[in-house]
Amino acid sequence: MRFARIGEPGAEVPAVSADGKTWLDLRPLAQDVTGELVAASAGLDLAELPGLPVGPGTRFGPPLGRIGKIVCIGLNYRDHAAETGAEPPPEPVVFMKAPDTVVGPDDEVLVPRGSTKTDYEVELAVVIGRTARYLDSPAAAAGHIAGYAISNDVSEREFQIERGGQWDKGKNCETFNPFGPWIATADEVGDPQALGLRLSVNGESRQDGSTKNMIFDVAHVVWYLSQFMTLYPGDVINTGTPAGVAMGKPDPKPYLRPGDVVELEIDGLGRQRQTFGAA
Amino acid sequence: MRFARIGEPGAEVPAVSADGKTWLDLRPLAQDVTGELVAASAGLDLAELPGLPVGPGTRFGPPLGRIGKIVCIGLNYRDHAAETGAEPPPEPVVFMKAPDTVVGPDDEVLVPRGSTKTDYEVELAVVIGRTARYLDSPAAAAGHIAGYAISNDVSEREFQIERGGQWDKGKNCETFNPFGPWIATADEVGDPQALGLRLSVNGESRQDGSTKNMIFDVAHVVWYLSQFMTLYPGDVINTGTPAGVAMGKPDPKPYLRPGDVVELEIDGLGRQRQTFGAA
Repeated sequence: MRFARIGEPGAEVPAVSADGKTWLDLRPLAQDVTGELVAASAGLDLAELPGLPVGPGTRFGPPLGRIGKIVCIGLNYRDHAAETGAEPPPEPVVFMKAPDTVVGPDDEVLVPRGSTKTDYEVELAVVIGRTARYLDSPAAAAGHIAGYAISNDVSEREFQIERGGQWDKGKNCETFNPFGPWIATADEVGDPQALGLRLSVNGESRQDGSTKNMIFDVAHVVWYLSQFMTLYPGDVINTGTPAGVAMGKPDPKPYLRPGDVVELEIDGLGRQRQTFGAA
Repeated sequence: MRFARIGEPGAEVPAVSADGKTWLDLRPLAQDVTGELVAASAGLDLAELPGLPVGPGTRFGPPLGRIGKIVCIGLNYRDHAAETGAEPPPEPVVFMKAPDTVVGPDDEVLVPRGSTKTDYEVELAVVIGRTARYLDSPAAAAGHIAGYAISNDVSEREFQIERGGQWDKGKNCETFNPFGPWIATADEVGDPQALGLRLSVNGESRQDGSTKNMIFDVAHVVWYLSQFMTLYPGDVINTGTPAGVAMGKPDPKPYLRPGDVVELEIDGLGRQRQTFGAA
């Protein structure tokens, strides 16, 4: 089952799709798409829901209405750690993105003022459906995951690395987390470690990886985080990016500029397409 | 004017005080305390509001109902940078705390499982009242600040520093941001760089500083952050802590353990008192 929020910014309608093609209006059952709702998808009776027409030009918003926090894992693919010159970390590297950075999958992303190193990162996003606190083992993680979606963990590398200490400074610029188009439930996705992830800029392939190359898999990440913080329904985890980011390319590194078009896809999770603008 | 949220967790009543002694029930005017509301305090007519009895045992909750994000400044007092062995940073060090870490000023704080280095940090918290985006200068910051409160930026130093890269891992444990008891409006506080901050553990003074010793003052911090991220009404900035944290003391460093009582105060912003427990 897939969940989305369809419509103009601030006026998105919660929607559900059982067949992956047609969308139904969820409003008779729910006011918004939440982590709890996605986690309860097996119990939803969709029979009486009205259809929701979707066509060219229909906007998908972020597919989750109230995101609590966004926890991000850094350097979580061997090939990406290598391209940035970093050793594979002995345990997950954790940083944060504010929920106010989230935009829809096809919304404009703004290159910050003064930026010369805006970069892209296709990532598998995990949506939490049930509170996770001091989980006993990675095997317990599955019971806390509602579903999966695409995140573009947009990053400004100078702000992140060259401006004084902590990565968050380059991760929280306005519009820096395109999210969606939909959340696919965990049962629909199946094995989250067998998904291809791809990203192109102006039609040229830049990232072409697989979640099988994560250093710390999804179950490990959820278990690990739950030892340091409590994960609540509606929290999102961006699980890291494979090789191919601009920072990892030879000079002159192909950082993003206004006018660039970035397209992302993950198997079963749809596609994103952002035109970059200027803040 | 002061704003608070008074009552049991999840059932707090928004409250306002004009005289600093008696509290009025804000519900006829507002559903909750928000950044916008505090920013509009000068326009509130309190004449018809009913009184709200406050006595021993009355719980103050976090004084802001919907916190968007919490942005924290690290190493922002000369004496604190020195005690941790760090050079004063050339520009603000920025990290994030999730709003779900916030508890009331006198609520229990939990030492995380496996923690041996839980530490305290008394901090002046800035509450944003109007969107701040690419401010022209520090002088413009005042128009975006609704008020001030106390934050205890509780920190687990091993998680923060010894566990792989980014500070957020030691800053986002459950209950790690006692906040309040009230927000004092910017006009009531006057000069935010002339406030004494004090913290004691089990009655013994540990921190006794002044906001005049900030490396980057409040106006600079708000202006600076607005170049990297958009600050929205209801966002909170923890502006850093003066010297005296456990990490800065000689061995054996007096980190916090269950049963410890931590008391904080900032001139004009009231007092906090937390008994620490075990997660």
